[in-house]
Amino acid sequence: MQPRIVSILGVGLLGGSIGLAVKERIKPCRVVGYGHKKATLDEALRLGAIDEAYGEPGRAVQGADVVVLCTPVGAFAEILRQIAPVVEGALITDVGSTKRSVVKLAEAILPQPARFVGSHPMAGSEKRGVRFARADLCDNALCLITPTDETDPVALSDVEAFWKILGMRTLRLSPADHDRRVAQISHLPHALAAIIVQAAGAESLELAGRGFLDLTRIAGGDGLLWRDILMDNRDNMRVCLAQVVLELQEFVSLLEPEKGEELRQFLDRAAAKRARIGRPGDADERGM
Amino acid sequence: MQPRIVSILGVGLLGGSIGLAVKERIKPCRVVGYGHKKATLDEALRLGAIDEAYGEPGRAVQGADVVVLCTPVGAFAEILRQIAPVVEGALITDVGSTKRSVVKLAEAILPQPARFVGSHPMAGSEKRGVRFARADLCDNALCLITPTDETDPVALSDVEAFWKILGMRTLRLSPADHDRRVAQISHLPHALAAIIVQAAGAESLELAGRGFLDLTRIAGGDGLLWRDILMDNRDNMRVCLAQVVLELQEFVSLLEPEKGEELRQFLDRAAAKRARIGRPGDADERGM
Repeated sequence: MQPRIVSILGVGLLGGSIGLAVKERIKPCRVVGYGHKKATLDEALRLGAIDEAYGEPGRAVQGADVVVLCTPVGAFAEILRQIAPVVEGALITDVGSTKRSVVKLAEAILPQPARFVGSHPMAGSEKRGVRFARADLCDNALCLITPTDETDPVALSDVEAFWKILGMRTLRLSPADHDRRVAQISHLPHALAAIIVQAAGAESLELAGRGFLDLTRIAGGDGLLWRDILMDNRDNMRVCLAQVVLELQEFVSLLEPEKGEELRQFLDRAAAKRARIGRPGDADERGM
Repeated sequence: MQPRIVSILGVGLLGGSIGLAVKERIKPCRVVGYGHKKATLDEALRLGAIDEAYGEPGRAVQGADVVVLCTPVGAFAEILRQIAPVVEGALITDVGSTKRSVVKLAEAILPQPARFVGSHPMAGSEKRGVRFARADLCDNALCLITPTDETDPVALSDVEAFWKILGMRTLRLSPADHDRRVAQISHLPHALAAIIVQAAGAESLELAGRGFLDLTRIAGGDGLLWRDILMDNRDNMRVCLAQVVLELQEFVSLLEPEKGEELRQFLDRAAAKRARIGRPGDADERGM
């Protein structure tokens, strides 16, 4: 796994960070970027996240060994159609937060057998744009890889090697498993953060401290991007939200003086479960 | 406001931090601590959070100019009964997270006219114990002050001066207003963080990244402490939780392909509201 040309299609926070990491860790390697806004491409060039910029995906992937789709998932179909005639054996992956629809799209549009493998690097932040890109954004974070029965085994191990070079840990999951588990751990929390912010009155928000700010930090994400994600994964979201309503109802039933001991146990169980996944208080205990 | 003896009743994270801050900012001043565990008192002495330690509240407040109740709210009644005969004109305040019941208790137990004023320093963390105490824990954080019609005006300005010396901003609220607004901004988020942790399956938790960890950080708090808070403020909690259920139902109704634009608007409104209270991504933008 020693690519000489890597194409980043979509140079936002994550695409730009991947570009910076590739340039730092793979030498020699040229990074070619595609974006639909000239200003973004200029900024990516200026920051050194890419070496070359194009306004058409088809031109940005010419001669590429690795192609990474980093635009919002909603743009994938059109981009796949544009690159399909020109990718010629390149390893193709993406960074989309949902995988069933993306993998299905790639298998339908790219000429088979394609060297496509779906990826989901669990790195990023609610900050937007290439100006926040960092070479170490992916360091030590987890990258979920979602092969199917159609996936070429060499492409699979190549894509794992690629993310590992950038400092990530990898884990294989089926696209369906991915979407179900990520709904609980990422998509549901995003929706709840937005709901908590919306449920709070303006006069209460004046009192907001670190606890509230941490809890709702991810509600600051891009509405369009998250709309696509939540809509795409809406079957799993409905299951998760129904589960939360059940837990809420159980919780309300514990707010009775005679239920004090049960309420304490509920809170202690949650604290113990939380403690097992990361040291409380250390906001940076893992990459996002 | 130049106290020479400050009594800290309960030397945990917050009590210990107040002790360290008093010793750093008020000189000369002696800090006397009460705790029911000898090991905790020894650690507080060793860390320099207190100068003198007692196992009985009545002894710890003798000669004090300022007394700060820092134990869990559930212990306040017993402590107030023990110090009532010996406080002799000291300024008395507390750090409890609920205020209606605390203020009522103090007015019922302390001999009137008492120099008691309820306080709620919005500082702390889900970490527990004096070993995490820091002199700057309260720096720049907000301290809510909850006077009533019975409150002595000199005591009120003295207690505000005390917290300001420790680096806090202060805001006056009625006890009822306090409990209602803090329910939305602190108690509800705590309950929801616990609920989100409980709603996630173990195999999904393996994938948890920074977003999930931030969102659920406060779920790591002490179950007993939070049980007391949530139970004490259960009328407001029920109102908040009902509001969240309404928002959840609205959110679920937006997860339909034809509602994409409305879903995006919901998410954008939440992001804009969140942005107004703190820069997204900066977990330390304010004290807790």
